[in-house]
Amino acid sequence: MSTKDASLASVIESLRVKQDKPLKLSDHDPAATLGWDKEAAKLELEDVKVRIDVLQQRLFAEEQRSLLLVLQAMDAAGKDGTIRNILAGLNPAGIKVSSFGVPGGPEVQHDYLWRVHAAAPSKGLIGIFNRSHYEDVLVVRVKQFVPKSVWSKRYDHIKAFEELLDDEGTKVVKCFLNVSQDEQRKRLQERVDDPEKRWKFRMGDLEDRKLWPEFQEAYTDALAKTSTDKAPWYVVPADRNWVRNLAVAKILLHHLEEMKPQLPPEEEGIDGLVVT
Amino acid sequence: MSTKDASLASVIESLRVKQDKPLKLSDHDPAATLGWDKEAAKLELEDVKVRIDVLQQRLFAEEQRSLLLVLQAMDAAGKDGTIRNILAGLNPAGIKVSSFGVPGGPEVQHDYLWRVHAAAPSKGLIGIFNRSHYEDVLVVRVKQFVPKSVWSKRYDHIKAFEELLDDEGTKVVKCFLNVSQDEQRKRLQERVDDPEKRWKFRMGDLEDRKLWPEFQEAYTDALAKTSTDKAPWYVVPADRNWVRNLAVAKILLHHLEEMKPQLPPEEEGIDGLVVT
Repeated sequence: MSTKDASLASVIESLRVKQDKPLKLSDHDPAATLGWDKEAAKLELEDVKVRIDVLQQRLFAEEQRSLLLVLQAMDAAGKDGTIRNILAGLNPAGIKVSSFGVPGGPEVQHDYLWRVHAAAPSKGLIGIFNRSHYEDVLVVRVKQFVPKSVWSKRYDHIKAFEELLDDEGTKVVKCFLNVSQDEQRKRLQERVDDPEKRWKFRMGDLEDRKLWPEFQEAYTDALAKTSTDKAPWYVVPADRNWVRNLAVAKILLHHLEEMKPQLPPEEEGIDGLVVT
Repeated sequence: MSTKDASLASVIESLRVKQDKPLKLSDHDPAATLGWDKEAAKLELEDVKVRIDVLQQRLFAEEQRSLLLVLQAMDAAGKDGTIRNILAGLNPAGIKVSSFGVPGGPEVQHDYLWRVHAAAPSKGLIGIFNRSHYEDVLVVRVKQFVPKSVWSKRYDHIKAFEELLDDEGTKVVKCFLNVSQDEQRKRLQERVDDPEKRWKFRMGDLEDRKLWPEFQEAYTDALAKTSTDKAPWYVVPADRNWVRNLAVAKILLHHLEEMKPQLPPEEEGIDGLVVT
């Protein structure tokens, strides 16, 4: 293992939520720099993106497996920015971004995993979930859309669902973008003040903000109960965009490298063929 | 109209297949440069992409309409390369690429437009079809998968389908990447010879190549019969990648500019709000 690879592995390890161990989100500093320097990190991000690009092309060519990156966070933590900064530049044909808003229509006429399963990436693709089935144990729990007797069973459903995906060729990787309450305040204020950003602001954001401790508790439970070796959670410091971007990119790279995607075997009779 | 806009409009016009006029593909030179210089074209592409990026963000924010870019071409004309070169760099959350291979499973248990309709981009998105429903009047016609009595009715279905999309908010823009038979030969040979590209080569590509005149005839018919003001076809010279890339990018930009996407109205009570 090179020094670079060792440093990658140790960062990954430090952010990972350990299976079956208690989790305290307050132990995770949203403003952490992970020992990185801002300018160097920007350069490194470009390097990491090039490596992701090569592996994405192989995954796409192989067409046997897929990777699903789940992004969850409080408002304004930077889910959209992460997608834009890490994935722009990759081949769009190999990426499928799915955003899950408030369910409606046929979605509410099915179990909560139905729409999520339908959006799973097909073989060869990197799928991104901007919000996900975790909303059904987060906002749904905090705002009491269903009683505890219902949401409390969902952690096991979710673990079983993600195990299915993994067993059948879809690596599931989950990132919680951990923003602080004060940084969120600044960012929401920025949205209010900037006419170009104002469309992103919803009065409802303030309602969720008031429930901050309840959301933190729900996140803690969700992460602790569903972080498994097959489908790990990572707590990504998100108060600094440059740290958040590089951390998520490294996590993605790490898992793509572990997958070792291969070019598919060629058809017989191609060697030495002359096209006329 | 500025000089730049006038030049954009005239290129668009020259590539556009006129509604209800006879079309001769042999009048369209696959090696045309459209009067562009290679180095300048690469710089201009970057500029065009920046302008597309701004408009894509507005389309995404507006969330009222969508744009569907259909790419059709003979093998190795550069559909994948076009997607990669023009769309990489845009926000992946606003792009949905759909590739249509040989239909199977439930797809063949429905009419040929069923799977295509299901893949239409939702409001706010730019959808890309890498191949499309046009295969059902191209390869299906040339290889006689269905009799003429069946495929000959399809041009009208397709026009009606695309009119529906346009009427309901999806602008349909179609590009035929026009590669010459000799350039295709070179590119297929390159795939055979390069171990990194060989996985893209299928022996079946040679079968289609033998049917070149039949495909040209089927393309001519398809383009002439279905190029409408609502859903125009463009014949894009594709022997030179840099011409192809800039031409498709300009066509995309032209139609996005025509759509004039707007930021959505803000909720009431946001002005002057202080987030606490």
